Amino acid sequence: MSFERVVLIGLGLLGGSIGLAMREALPGTVTIGYDADPATRARAQQRGLTQSVVESAAEAVVGADLVILCVPVGAMASVAAEIAPALREDAIISDVGSAKGTVARALAAALPGHQIIPAHPVAGTERSGPDAGFAELFRRRWCILTPGPEVDPASLARLSALWEALGARVEVMDADHHDLVLAVTSHIPHLIAYTIVGTASDLEQVTESEVIKYSAGGFRDFTRIAASDPTMWRDVFLANRGAVLEMLGRFTEDLTALQRAIRNGDGDALFDLFTRTRAIRRQVIEQGQDDARPDFGRSDH
Amino acid sequence: MSFERVVLIGLGLLGGSIGLAMREALPGTVTIGYDADPATRARAQQRGLTQSVVESAAEAVVGADLVILCVPVGAMASVAAEIAPALREDAIISDVGSAKGTVARALAAALPGHQIIPAHPVAGTERSGPDAGFAELFRRRWCILTPGPEVDPASLARLSALWEALGARVEVMDADHHDLVLAVTSHIPHLIAYTIVGTASDLEQVTESEVIKYSAGGFRDFTRIAASDPTMWRDVFLANRGAVLEMLGRFTEDLTALQRAIRNGDGDALFDLFTRTRAIRRQVIEQGQDDARPDFGRSDH
Repeated sequence: MSFERVVLIGLGLLGGSIGLAMREALPGTVTIGYDADPATRARAQQRGLTQSVVESAAEAVVGADLVILCVPVGAMASVAAEIAPALREDAIISDVGSAKGTVARALAAALPGHQIIPAHPVAGTERSGPDAGFAELFRRRWCILTPGPEVDPASLARLSALWEALGARVEVMDADHHDLVLAVTSHIPHLIAYTIVGTASDLEQVTESEVIKYSAGGFRDFTRIAASDPTMWRDVFLANRGAVLEMLGRFTEDLTALQRAIRNGDGDALFDLFTRTRAIRRQVIEQGQDDARPDFGRSDH
Repeated sequence: MSFERVVLIGLGLLGGSIGLAMREALPGTVTIGYDADPATRARAQQRGLTQSVVESAAEAVVGADLVILCVPVGAMASVAAEIAPALREDAIISDVGSAKGTVARALAAALPGHQIIPAHPVAGTERSGPDAGFAELFRRRWCILTPGPEVDPASLARLSALWEALGARVEVMDADHHDLVLAVTSHIPHLIAYTIVGTASDLEQVTESEVIKYSAGGFRDFTRIAASDPTMWRDVFLANRGAVLEMLGRFTEDLTALQRAIRNGDGDALFDLFTRTRAIRRQVIEQGQDDARPDFGRSDH
């Protein structure tokens, strides 16, 4: 049931973390890695992100029963085309992209006849590159699988078991619903964080050094999110355009209502919202999706 | 030069942290506390947030040479009126509110003839109440003082020395400039966080339980900020209305431009912004205003 030969294409934060987690949890599985960047390949070899690191994507996938594409969403189609001729017929193809609808369609078009199970482990940090990965990244996090109707239950079970072995909890979902949910819980938060950090650094009345000095009032949390990988996020917004624009419309409506409440001095409207949002935080903590220490323990408290 | 008898009105996160920090750093100074809430007073006494906790604000300030108001911005004027008759003529009055222009004017109107030095320690966590405070809260954080022209240099030096003793770095600034700077680095980030958490919980297509489950994609950081004290933040937005609306206008313009870039598939515009914001993060870390561990060490990495 388990995989014998797993290939990771792309050895950044996600690919590297999968490799390191597999080394701990599934030491009997052969892992092969490839990254388009020679410096990343060299570093991946030094850190042992996979058991071997090879020189081309096509070479990597020969004989593999599972290939996981850990590249930016916009690069999925070209990588799929590159590996297509070298794939075993029964190889399962997956990925870790943050948008699923466009990826599912791109992989299906490039790899007809294969079992394609798009995946999205909802986990990450602001770091990227071959030094960013670590084995614990997926522990207690959710991994969403969005198989098409052609995927057989046995393949789905095998991939689910792999993610569970890495510490994740698995959920199966329709790709389009995934894209709507993640637009709210991940894509819009990133877009907003990038925007406010950009706004702050462009002001004439407030200097950049003031913005940085007084960032402990809330801004610094946004700078962390806005330090995420630019290529990855550019691709996510372009790939999930529809859901992002829809959710952005809702956000903007709500922001406009709050703006009006502030202009009109409507303290009750503000208080009501600010009380409601507190309850959501409690549930995030209760369900193990965040650290309950105030300020994440940053104040050494 | 140093203060002999310091009164803290309001014993929540800020008042409590000042009291605990004073106990460590200035054990020779007498501290007296008061809070309008009897339960908070009882808890403050148990935790020893101040050396004594008394039953009224007027009683608290008798004989004090420094009174720090640690109440929501909207309560400053009424507390000032309450203590006015009991104050020593040479008592210095300060506060810790996150908006300074309206507070400075309210205190000046209520307490004519006193040395009034509004203050804002740019530090905090999402917790509030008498259990939230801790002595290390102000370490390496900035405390902004916004004295009016009537304040004498000796009084300003005494208050600066107190904050430095608590571990803070002190900056003197015009109240209106403070309000503009903090609108960007603190008020707008909070407003945006409250908004997106509200938006997410109101959607029809995505359930609240999905929002919570997949919050590790970025949303959970916003829930932390949106768990901040509702009364405090309602008052901040009403008190700093002008600067908040001005900065919100800039943010909305920039967000609209990004929205257009996404709609038009303009990947270069997205990539350029996302690269620029990364540099700001590096400076926040370099200047000691945030923890460099990825994800704040939440992943136990």
